[in-house]
Amino acid sequence: MSEPALPRLVAVGLVRHGDRAGEPTWVVTRRHPDAHLGGAWELPGGRIEPGEKPEDALRRELREELGVEVEGISPLTFSFFEYPGRTVLLLFYETQTVAGSTPRPLAAAELRLVTMAELLDLTWPPANGPLIRHLQTSRRPW
Amino acid sequence: MSEPALPRLVAVGLVRHGDRAGEPTWVVTRRHPDAHLGGAWELPGGRIEPGEKPEDALRRELREELGVEVEGISPLTFSFFEYPGRTVLLLFYETQTVAGSTPRPLAAAELRLVTMAELLDLTWPPANGPLIRHLQTSRRPW
Repeated sequence: MSEPALPRLVAVGLVRHGDRAGEPTWVVTRRHPDAHLGGAWELPGGRIEPGEKPEDALRRELREELGVEVEGISPLTFSFFEYPGRTVLLLFYETQTVAGSTPRPLAAAELRLVTMAELLDLTWPPANGPLIRHLQTSRRPW
Repeated sequence: MSEPALPRLVAVGLVRHGDRAGEPTWVVTRRHPDAHLGGAWELPGGRIEPGEKPEDALRRELREELGVEVEGISPLTFSFFEYPGRTVLLLFYETQTVAGSTPRPLAAAELRLVTMAELLDLTWPPANGPLIRHLQTSRRPW
């Protein structure tokens, strides 16, 4: 007897690290070519385990994927998305690295630090749509 | 043997209905005095059942609580909140009533249509914090 499917909860970080010419820069990573959605740009993050708080999951994933500690985690928006055979609920958070913590691509093929304008120019998977729209309509000076 | 707790998923609607002096107005309801958080203002919505899509849950809850049909559902932000003995993940959506559909307080003590400025002046439960901050920082002309 199988229970009706619950979406897989995923915490995703828009991670600020440093700046360029006075503009904040943000971490983007590119998936390994042979992975699901291979070669696509993405934001770091991963599955929230049962009983785990979303913010704790995000801290854990950012340690595992980027080797960084972060501070100041706040919710941005979310995306409910149905892949074939798997439904996900992505929770997008904004955060920043603590002083002395430098992101490295421990789980990705490539890592870049981009301004918000550059980030919005990248091609993102459809599941990220609500985040991109959120960033485009925010009054914040990114 | 108990599984680690998963948060209860709840779909919540910021529902536009009509306007006043050219400004859009939004549905707010007040909880019955004897309910949990009795007397507080809230936005309509309710539990997402296992296997149910969040947007379908929202449509169902808005029919049950306000007697309305809505169109144009889009994600705003979310809130993970721990009440004593119950953890919730609130998914906040923006939507609007379809023509001819008038909200009534079928499950609430009171219903009001308020402008965005009025909405932001109300006292909201702490779990709504991320939504209030989201609305305050949006570039949108509410």
